[in-house]
Amino acid sequence: MLTRDEIAAARQQAVEYFAAAGIVVTEKEKQEIEIADFGLGDLYRMGLEVLVYINTERVCAKELVMFPGQTCPEHIHPTINGVPGKEETFRCRWGKVHLYVDGAAEGNKYLDGLGEHAAYLQCAKEIVLMPGDQYTIMPDTNHWFRAGEEGAVVSEFSTRSTDELDRFTDPGINRFTVISD
Amino acid sequence: MLTRDEIAAARQQAVEYFAAAGIVVTEKEKQEIEIADFGLGDLYRMGLEVLVYINTERVCAKELVMFPGQTCPEHIHPTINGVPGKEETFRCRWGKVHLYVDGAAEGNKYLDGLGEHAAYLQCAKEIVLMPGDQYTIMPDTNHWFRAGEEGAVVSEFSTRSTDELDRFTDPGINRFTVISD
Repeated sequence: MLTRDEIAAARQQAVEYFAAAGIVVTEKEKQEIEIADFGLGDLYRMGLEVLVYINTERVCAKELVMFPGQTCPEHIHPTINGVPGKEETFRCRWGKVHLYVDGAAEGNKYLDGLGEHAAYLQCAKEIVLMPGDQYTIMPDTNHWFRAGEEGAVVSEFSTRSTDELDRFTDPGINRFTVISD
Repeated sequence: MLTRDEIAAARQQAVEYFAAAGIVVTEKEKQEIEIADFGLGDLYRMGLEVLVYINTERVCAKELVMFPGQTCPEHIHPTINGVPGKEETFRCRWGKVHLYVDGAAEGNKYLDGLGEHAAYLQCAKEIVLMPGDQYTIMPDTNHWFRAGEEGAVVSEFSTRSTDELDRFTDPGINRFTVISD
């Protein structure tokens, strides 16, 4: 749960990250940035700032802003009734991203300061994305990701985005932010 | 037809446009930039510089560099045997793009200096894209586009890219650049 003031403040911060990354967004888009706290009420630890450029039946493109150390919680885009789940490519534009996917552990999971949330971050194969680096996640692959100490701006290129179908590891998560006032 | 030296020079110029636009590309990607002259041998008038980030069965993302006044010739992504043609969104990142699609004429077509190529640029509904502006082209829609006087950098988000299926208005076009030495 977030207040309108908290959402406005986070939007303004996200706009500053776009400026730092040299990404031009329109005034209308600035007002449309989604501030996602995943129902955890702990935005600066577990959250994501999302600007959807396009989301049709076939294609989706977004920019993601992540504040320093901010984490997008572990989830999967499942194939349902034979309909393939979402496929997505993350391309780091600015800052640094630690991405974790299913697979044999590599590196050390970056969990500093995440407290109780760490229990739900189980993937341990680490991919570090610096600006210009990218990684593609096919459907049915568990993953989570966390910005480095300066934050990050990440482009996401994918099939249709159907957030309501995502399955999160943490049962306390609600994908859609509730506004408290 | 282009020589290896012409391709190397155009690649170097394209890299400078990415830098101007604040888009980070890797050293490997710099060598992979496609220099497309559409078989017309007139690159700086009719051509495109293309960096493909990802192209899977379902999703494609690219950056396009266009030199000042450079034109991507008119073409269509056709639906074939019930398989929908490519759907694409162009988002201007830097510079200015004049995009023309099927439809009632709007504005004036920007044809200065295009000479004999102008005959094959028939779409006349103009959409001008400045940084932060975008436009989505659904399958089976004729379109062409031209950079403004400073050039342009454009992100393209689309379904799978199948250049070999594109149909060009100019029968002299060959989508794939031939290297002459």
